[in-house]
Amino acid sequence: MKLKLTAKTKEKEKTFFTVGNTTVGEDMLIIAGPCSVESEDQILSIAKSVKEAGANMLRGGAYKPRTSPYSFQGLGRKGLEYLKTAGDTNGLPVVSEVVDTRDVFLVCEYVDVLQIGARNMQNYALLQEVGRANIPVLLKRGMHASIEEWLNCAEYIMNEGNERVILCERGIRTFETYTRNTLDLSAVAALKGLTHLPVITDPSHATGRVELVEPMCLSSIMAGCDGIMIEVHNDPDNALSDGDQSLTPEQFSEIMIRVNSTRAFLWEGI
Amino acid sequence: MKLKLTAKTKEKEKTFFTVGNTTVGEDMLIIAGPCSVESEDQILSIAKSVKEAGANMLRGGAYKPRTSPYSFQGLGRKGLEYLKTAGDTNGLPVVSEVVDTRDVFLVCEYVDVLQIGARNMQNYALLQEVGRANIPVLLKRGMHASIEEWLNCAEYIMNEGNERVILCERGIRTFETYTRNTLDLSAVAALKGLTHLPVITDPSHATGRVELVEPMCLSSIMAGCDGIMIEVHNDPDNALSDGDQSLTPEQFSEIMIRVNSTRAFLWEGI
Amino acid sequence: MKLKLTAKTKEKEKTFFTVGNTTVGEDMLIIAGPCSVESEDQILSIAKSVKEAGANMLRGGAYKPRTSPYSFQGLGRKGLEYLKTAGDTNGLPVVSEVVDTRDVFLVCEYVDVLQIGARNMQNYALLQEVGRANIPVLLKRGMHASIEEWLNCAEYIMNEGNERVILCERGIRTFETYTRNTLDLSAVAALKGLTHLPVITDPSHATGRVELVEPMCLSSIMAGCDGIMIEVHNDPDNALSDGDQSLTPEQFSEIMIRVNSTRAFLWEGI
Amino acid sequence: MKLKLTAKTKEKEKTFFTVGNTTVGEDMLIIAGPCSVESEDQILSIAKSVKEAGANMLRGGAYKPRTSPYSFQGLGRKGLEYLKTAGDTNGLPVVSEVVDTRDVFLVCEYVDVLQIGARNMQNYALLQEVGRANIPVLLKRGMHASIEEWLNCAEYIMNEGNERVILCERGIRTFETYTRNTLDLSAVAALKGLTHLPVITDPSHATGRVELVEPMCLSSIMAGCDGIMIEVHNDPDNALSDGDQSLTPEQFSEIMIRVNSTRAFLWEGI
Repeated sequence: MKLKLTAKTKEKEKTFFTVGNTTVGEDMLIIAGPCSVESEDQILSIAKSVKEAGANMLRGGAYKPRTSPYSFQGLGRKGLEYLKTAGDTNGLPVVSEVVDTRDVFLVCEYVDVLQIGARNMQNYALLQEVGRANIPVLLKRGMHASIEEWLNCAEYIMNEGNERVILCERGIRTFETYTRNTLDLSAVAALKGLTHLPVITDPSHATGRVELVEPMCLSSIMAGCDGIMIEVHNDPDNALSDGDQSLTPEQFSEIMIRVNSTRAFLWEGI
Repeated sequence: MKLKLTAKTKEKEKTFFTVGNTTVGEDMLIIAGPCSVESEDQILSIAKSVKEAGANMLRGGAYKPRTSPYSFQGLGRKGLEYLKTAGDTNGLPVVSEVVDTRDVFLVCEYVDVLQIGARNMQNYALLQEVGRANIPVLLKRGMHASIEEWLNCAEYIMNEGNERVILCERGIRTFETYTRNTLDLSAVAALKGLTHLPVITDPSHATGRVELVEPMCLSSIMAGCDGIMIEVHNDPDNALSDGDQSLTPEQFSEIMIRVNSTRAFLWEGI
Repeated sequence: MKLKLTAKTKEKEKTFFTVGNTTVGEDMLIIAGPCSVESEDQILSIAKSVKEAGANMLRGGAYKPRTSPYSFQGLGRKGLEYLKTAGDTNGLPVVSEVVDTRDVFLVCEYVDVLQIGARNMQNYALLQEVGRANIPVLLKRGMHASIEEWLNCAEYIMNEGNERVILCERGIRTFETYTRNTLDLSAVAALKGLTHLPVITDPSHATGRVELVEPMCLSSIMAGCDGIMIEVHNDPDNALSDGDQSLTPEQFSEIMIRVNSTRAFLWEGI
Repeated sequence: MKLKLTAKTKEKEKTFFTVGNTTVGEDMLIIAGPCSVESEDQILSIAKSVKEAGANMLRGGAYKPRTSPYSFQGLGRKGLEYLKTAGDTNGLPVVSEVVDTRDVFLVCEYVDVLQIGARNMQNYALLQEVGRANIPVLLKRGMHASIEEWLNCAEYIMNEGNERVILCERGIRTFETYTRNTLDLSAVAALKGLTHLPVITDPSHATGRVELVEPMCLSSIMAGCDGIMIEVHNDPDNALSDGDQSLTPEQFSEIMIRVNSTRAFLWEGI
């Protein structure tokens, strides 16, 4: 089945759109923030830090899809409010996950970009619903999804009229258990030839290991990505979710220096 | 995180419940029917055939999650009506997939068992919604899901109050491409020790090949499954979806002879 | 590239050959024994037990391919001597693994069937060398190997003149870690249509769990296998390798009752 | 089982050794050449081109492990002679694969570095034999091998006395079929923390696609690799093996410009 809307063509080589002051597809998108919004103080503090370090978008989960029903499920609407406040206060557009078709309208009130998580990549009803929304969608790759299946999911969104889709490679599930998943950077490079849509990576979820986030950020840039998403927490040891892979604001700040210089090198120096 | 509700314990070794005249967990569940309901005539004809051959439940998709938005997406509510008519006419309870939290109430009006497909296994909002429904749920394993993740999804459903969950192994995604997926029968055997819930298999979707359906049905029975789900179509060559793996009514009838004798052997002869 | 020698054709539907008193391809091959030969007493004791329980071939590793160089590597030639003595004493032909082209001649002096392990499935030099030997070869599937690659490895052996090849499915590596590997029974069923060579399964290595050996033996039979290979140890808790998945002689004896009745059912009752 | 010899420790943070004029572990290792040595003219021509473009080692297979026994199997000893001549003529040390314990001594006469291919990664007899050789060993990762298993294979080599081992990530087998394998760059970054051994990547075999070689080379560098291996052929369309993924000398020359500037950036500019 042909990719009518997502395929790269001579007429449509690359998609650009703005989020806040950032031109996605041109500027490097740096999305940072905690896995979950845990409190207003927490997200305000992290937002301030990541803004100073150079992030241009704030992430934070309010509706968390967790493996067990007994794990922390997120603060819901309250979490969205805190996230929006933190974004507004620091001049950062915000992205948060939506997990239910019935919530799309609500979440749109608070966020600048809707996120579809890996587990919902092939939740076609949800894809169609965000396809009718008026804001960009960040579509994570399912951990089991082929490149072709992933592009078809973007096709579902675009087919409803929403042309602002960002693809996010977050690691695929393989036999290797040293890393949480396997970041598939050749998929990123391949997508640059297959689609006009912007592609970013999420080294935090992909590797699940703090020490691998920096090298995978820099590798992602050289693979041609249009942005990166990094988990940052003010107190990783006591995070309610994903503490193992979260950077402290200090670590994030350090990494940003090399992310920026690598990006500059790619554009100017190579 | 503990499995509070799905785990097999001394107090709760096995779950039984009735659907139509069948006691799930005791009688062998034989679910047959087309991938998609395509017309009233089609589903009526198939229902009659599979009933005669010994099926005790009718399947048929009305809301179809398809890889491409340009593929046939199912007849929707009309498909449910046809399915119910075909079930009522032939004395067969019916099962059909629900893909959107907003549709659960509607689908419940027409079906006896709600199906959660592999792509929606970790659509937790949907799991919670069917957990509040008053009818059994057939939960397919995600193609990338570990046994533990799968059981946690059943836990989501049960945690909302619905104790009638059927687990369905439908093949996991591996490197092997000769078969559509890899039917994981050791998972079926393992589940018999881990959970009190009934477990069935879907050899049609797992193998994607007509000639492998019979041996995988018989193998499933010896692995300890409580039922099987088989795709049957009156005209596989012209099916709107999954024709390659659909049996004709005649083939299904043939297979049922050996399914029944194998089941009888397991209960009496071994 | 065509499968010239292994493919099933009208002229060559099935291969038969005798090992001891067993006609492979017709009689059910039951290979039992320890992962490693540890001492003369050990293998003599196990051989006696498995013979009584109905095994028709004895296995035991003398050259062990172990993940770490610091693990027990097998008794080498001494192990082969003990194995042969145990086989002779109990009227059981023996099978053992060869891991080096230089050892093929030596190992042939002691065994009735040469085993190529999963890690050496694509060790083409070794395949060619055993292809020049005068005794049958049991070729295990590599944990990463497609059906097509596996058949091509048998083709390497047959291309050197040795037509007596037994294929052994021993589980493929997938993301699932509950079982050691994933026993691919649809591959067994598929092979019955693709090749004339006999196919057996190894549920012990595939599952790595004692409690799953029996159901996977019975499932294998219904998938159409020509035999099974089971690890049996007189003292699993103190085995030098693979104790977790080894049955005691008593457990093996129990399982054999149902293996035999299932096989009889398949041939007569179904 | 502990990694006694390969593990990174305070005492042993990094291994260095020279091959030709290159200090492996310090200088960037650039290995280029055809999949197979096909003729003296072919390898002489390619050697000259890759030398001019900046390669510091020449590769070329003489003993080729091929999926089918009917595919071109390499020129054997003749191929080694041609390779050595081409290396000597152009001042390039050479690397070639050895596939049989009996050939190690012979191959050592012609090459500067012995290669163990992915299919033989766990051919422990061969690992031990090259561990007794007096020249460095390039150990490719098996397509199914965990990082831990791979390091244990290096341990086998070192345990025999050969401390000059180069690890080569060449892609793991996953469900994704768009690329031939999935280049696991997080494994490269992880290894920099786990072992003192040098680590290189092989983007040609990993991706199987010419257009992905450059981005994966540059990504590999940022992941921290100590070198790269690239397939170059004077006439890819008529190559006897792996033509689809081979660069022309012109393409290689182009890529080398950016490989060198990226490496320089990493060392100086970042």
